[in-house]
Amino acid sequence: MAKKQENEDKIKTEKENKLKETTRFCMTKNHHKNTYNEAKEIGRMDSDLIPLCDYILTTKNYFTTSSCAGRIALIGLGKNETKQESAFYRKWHRIVNTKEVLEAIKNYKGHVLWFKQEPLILHLGTNNIENAKKILTLCEKVGVKRAGIKVAKGGKFIVEILGTQNITTPIKEGKISASEEYLKYLIKKGNQKFKKNQELIKKLFKEAKKELK
Amino acid sequence: MAKKQENEDKIKTEKENKLKETTRFCMTKNHHKNTYNEAKEIGRMDSDLIPLCDYILTTKNYFTTSSCAGRIALIGLGKNETKQESAFYRKWHRIVNTKEVLEAIKNYKGHVLWFKQEPLILHLGTNNIENAKKILTLCEKVGVKRAGIKVAKGGKFIVEILGTQNITTPIKEGKISASEEYLKYLIKKGNQKFKKNQELIKKLFKEAKKELK
Repeated sequence: MAKKQENEDKIKTEKENKLKETTRFCMTKNHHKNTYNEAKEIGRMDSDLIPLCDYILTTKNYFTTSSCAGRIALIGLGKNETKQESAFYRKWHRIVNTKEVLEAIKNYKGHVLWFKQEPLILHLGTNNIENAKKILTLCEKVGVKRAGIKVAKGGKFIVEILGTQNITTPIKEGKISASEEYLKYLIKKGNQKFKKNQELIKKLFKEAKKELK
Repeated sequence: MAKKQENEDKIKTEKENKLKETTRFCMTKNHHKNTYNEAKEIGRMDSDLIPLCDYILTTKNYFTTSSCAGRIALIGLGKNETKQESAFYRKWHRIVNTKEVLEAIKNYKGHVLWFKQEPLILHLGTNNIENAKKILTLCEKVGVKRAGIKVAKGGKFIVEILGTQNITTPIKEGKISASEEYLKYLIKKGNQKFKKNQELIKKLFKEAKKELK
């Protein structure tokens, strides 16, 4: 009889946990839905990501948290080059033109300047590990190598997805500077990779519509 | 009575699954232990990672699979710059000297050449999600932003850990080439970042000894 009681207690606890997890998931999805809609309304959502994020909103099991569609940026750094000292000197969430970037570089007065073309970063949330694994499989399918579960608790799993296109290099430090000819080339390459990154987002969107419900 | 039977069946299945998971974990840990020891024996393990990997071997719950301590590399690419066309033209798992890199660049005959300083990449395996989460917490503690669970099945969880130090930029394409002065600077920065990456490995080792058993 003691064993029977024990089993029943175990099953009761499981049911209670399940309920807690479902509640947590609903609250989290709802919270991020509101945050996303607000961000979209005030124009703070990268337009390249809107179709994908809009779709995710309509699914039963998924939500998006923070995201960036990708960008070209100039990052200023202090002498120690620590993260604390780093600052966006300029950033563009679009194809850039050579002139605006060259001018920004010319006018930079800080210590070290980095040129960065950064890929998509997206955090996709879901309710359980099986659905989190569906996101990982999807990433593998579209060729995103860097994807992994960052948060794993009952009712809340978050997968971080990082695109593959990437340039990151210091271009100016004290008296040293990359030549204008090379910088022009770098900007061109940055734009090329930015476009490839946009294609990846479209591919991700297409597959998400098939795989994530 | 039917309910009692149902509960007992459920608990029996759980026990059987648990046993399967334990077996899978033991087999996987053992397999990777052998692979690691072989790689070490023939000198194919990056020396910077050996103390950490040796420690992981002694733990009850963890193992390492593929890993790279970090490197400075020149990658050649074809016209389409696809992954299929990419090839290591040169790689060094150590501090480089300016002369050897400049010479290699000068002698490159392919289409596009990239300079890369790549950080640590480590795959840490474990038996369950709670232990996988311990790895994620550890990474957060030592300042590794890019870490996530890539494989999640009963008895086999794998966390991918990616260091933060990174330079990646095209330096030569057709007639365009970065100037020698700039390349010298880039190589110096690559070495600086390579050293910072080595410090990160030491920090990771120190914390792993405390947190992973």
